[in-house]
Amino acid sequence: MPIPESAEGRRIYEEDRAHVFHSWSAQNALDPLVITRTEGSRVWDADGKGYLDFSSQLVFTNLGHQHPRVVEAIRDQAAALCTIAPAHANGARSEAARLVAERLPDGFDKVFFTNGGAEAVENAIRMARLYTGRYKVLSFFRGYHGATQQAINVTGDHRRWPNDYGASGVVHVHGPFLYRTQFHATTEDEERDRALEHLESTIRFEDPDAFAAIIVETIPGTAGVMPPPPGYLQGVREICDRYGIVMILDEVMVGFGRTGAWFALDNYGVVPDLVTFAKGVNSGYVPLGGVGISRPIAEFFGDRPYPGGLTYSGHPLACAAAVATIKAMVDERAVEHAARLGEEILAPGLARIAARHPSVGEVRGLGAFFALDLVKNPVTREELSPYGSSNAAIGAVLAACRDDGLLVFNNYHRIHLAPPLNTTEEEVREALAILDRALEVADSYVETSAGGTRDEPVLEGVPA
Amino acid sequence: MPIPESAEGRRIYEEDRAHVFHSWSAQNALDPLVITRTEGSRVWDADGKGYLDFSSQLVFTNLGHQHPRVVEAIRDQAAALCTIAPAHANGARSEAARLVAERLPDGFDKVFFTNGGAEAVENAIRMARLYTGRYKVLSFFRGYHGATQQAINVTGDHRRWPNDYGASGVVHVHGPFLYRTQFHATTEDEERDRALEHLESTIRFEDPDAFAAIIVETIPGTAGVMPPPPGYLQGVREICDRYGIVMILDEVMVGFGRTGAWFALDNYGVVPDLVTFAKGVNSGYVPLGGVGISRPIAEFFGDRPYPGGLTYSGHPLACAAAVATIKAMVDERAVEHAARLGEEILAPGLARIAARHPSVGEVRGLGAFFALDLVKNPVTREELSPYGSSNAAIGAVLAACRDDGLLVFNNYHRIHLAPPLNTTEEEVREALAILDRALEVADSYVETSAGGTRDEPVLEGVPA
Repeated sequence: MPIPESAEGRRIYEEDRAHVFHSWSAQNALDPLVITRTEGSRVWDADGKGYLDFSSQLVFTNLGHQHPRVVEAIRDQAAALCTIAPAHANGARSEAARLVAERLPDGFDKVFFTNGGAEAVENAIRMARLYTGRYKVLSFFRGYHGATQQAINVTGDHRRWPNDYGASGVVHVHGPFLYRTQFHATTEDEERDRALEHLESTIRFEDPDAFAAIIVETIPGTAGVMPPPPGYLQGVREICDRYGIVMILDEVMVGFGRTGAWFALDNYGVVPDLVTFAKGVNSGYVPLGGVGISRPIAEFFGDRPYPGGLTYSGHPLACAAAVATIKAMVDERAVEHAARLGEEILAPGLARIAARHPSVGEVRGLGAFFALDLVKNPVTREELSPYGSSNAAIGAVLAACRDDGLLVFNNYHRIHLAPPLNTTEEEVREALAILDRALEVADSYVETSAGGTRDEPVLEGVPA
Repeated sequence: MPIPESAEGRRIYEEDRAHVFHSWSAQNALDPLVITRTEGSRVWDADGKGYLDFSSQLVFTNLGHQHPRVVEAIRDQAAALCTIAPAHANGARSEAARLVAERLPDGFDKVFFTNGGAEAVENAIRMARLYTGRYKVLSFFRGYHGATQQAINVTGDHRRWPNDYGASGVVHVHGPFLYRTQFHATTEDEERDRALEHLESTIRFEDPDAFAAIIVETIPGTAGVMPPPPGYLQGVREICDRYGIVMILDEVMVGFGRTGAWFALDNYGVVPDLVTFAKGVNSGYVPLGGVGISRPIAEFFGDRPYPGGLTYSGHPLACAAAVATIKAMVDERAVEHAARLGEEILAPGLARIAARHPSVGEVRGLGAFFALDLVKNPVTREELSPYGSSNAAIGAVLAACRDDGLLVFNNYHRIHLAPPLNTTEEEVREALAILDRALEVADSYVETSAGGTRDEPVLEGVPA
């Protein structure tokens, strides 16, 4: 990124480099973009250059930037009462809990609030272990659940590796992912059946009576937006019921409208025992996460103390932002709008793009949540950049997007489009046009010997 | 607590009971106080009854409730820019990092922001393990470091027990605590020397080359405000240097003026390698925590990626609140005021109270941070309520305080006074008068056979 030209921008940049230690990064290599203004689906850097924000930052500004109703709610709550400890009762906290519970499946009455997704996962696993009296937790490769110790232990991407201290009791399996199948399947039905067989077989060989929980992202997000095949999550539910295992659906990234439904689980008609959430619950305007708790587990902690907590559980400022976010989403029909954007603009638009670009191996997604799986060989499906790192090819594609004024979510060889739910059709078309041009850069890295014989790019994801 | 009489209060209460799952509690037993207004060192319930807040909630409202400059900063930042992802640079974030770093010891340039104290501890331990290439972590019984998996593993109170899954690599020892000595010591010097000998002996028998970190609260807080004997922390520093171990001081509760110094470590002239903080950094108005990082560890992650992060690292709204809090503390000389309150009002006032009440076994503390160790037998020092629980005696004392309009921090048999740093002398005197009356209730539980032979109650804590 060029260092900002404005004095204020330069001051922020230099103060950042001197004093801010950044997430997931080698600190010397950083070159952060100084963002000084945001609104709706756009952000501006310190020199006034604008960008369409199709990253929603880290997929959390579900209502876009600076939504006036959410901003006003934060300002009002700040003026009235910024904070109060979790032991007390407070209007913003109790209303937010009700509004979240009302959107969860029947039988979910109670909500435990945290500051974010990782703490939600920590507490959901704690609840499951205490409720079952069991120890092991099953999770999935290509899952991401946060970076505190328990959350990173169940995470199934390479970010776990340097953090793998004392992760006893966690067992990872492969989930269904037809484009890069582990099960040598050729259809979604076959992938589903074989993935379920693999899951159950692993549990049986690991001791079914040892498992407290299965935790899975309803749609794995960071690892590539892989909507599960129809029937897969029902199959997981049946396995949980068969062996007395708590089913935790991680909706941190996909909850609150991201997939064109209030929760992604609504797309599949499956009812888990615990639901983790964060990000979209208040568009990330104030740190907030939590666990939705089904009645049997909530009642289990009716007369015995729940041994977990945190200083800012149910923070009033965060909860007031959640109340305003949820009400605005209802009034503005943001969830329905996201579903329509996905069906009518993003899915067909990305299908056309995939057909034009040999670098696009597959497009997956629904609602306002899509990924392009970029390959340097569409026949072998070899990724454009290797697992766990970047290279010049993906860097050039991202730079082309950014130069043209588009921010996307990137993870290794993939580009994800996750715009705010209330992005306009025109903004989506503008973003798709920028992406279309940028993918010519990706195409230039495709091995020419691969031409002609690849499968047609496919579009996956709309649930049956 | 009586259910509120007002319709609004009753609605909040009932919505809380129906939908909010509370920290650290059996859910059916809860009877939360509905708080609807707060200002300075006071809060009011839904029926308008006021309370002096000498809990600072969970010891975090260091500037009191609704400080106008912090409220205004949050409102301004909300209007300007609520949120931006950690990868970008932002003015509130970089200024907050600088202001925190400037208050840490020389050689601390960089700050990694989290949402709270538990995540700060998680990341500090991660940094220490990667920096040293070692595995084990030494921590202390009677320490509290948060409730995510790694944080609860190093916690040394009973809240770890139901969460003790896969805590390999964590070794707990006893720290110095003369009033309840593990080392059969009779003086502070003896307690210090024996505690250091115990610490080093444990490390030598556990394999010195295996230890990544020693983590310790500079002054253990929740477990009873135990200021370390003069020279103890220097001794820990020497042991860390001798064996190449990273020294982590947990300043989550004691940082940002609580002890009458910017950081509690300033009272002892000791320089650790990492400092964890949260709570007072922005008076808890928006969830925020972090790790202060000394130069060698920051530079270690200069060219290799730091494998940790979180969605809301350096949240602009939280950072703007920190900037305003720190500046207001400077301008209003809040830290100096807290030191003076401790020396001139709280310490002598509590000494007088201790002398009058046989239930007060010991008073410990400094600044705006004191604990009363309540006993039912001043000779045997048996606690007024047993470890890890409450009983009728302590419940009656707390009720007497509350009925008279005083909220205190309670942990088992102890009462902690941790008012906002800017509490007035008059408010402190008012609180001490209420406490003085309430302790008559505690006295009524003291075993009468114990009278007359006990040691004089002692006042500990002002560092040499």
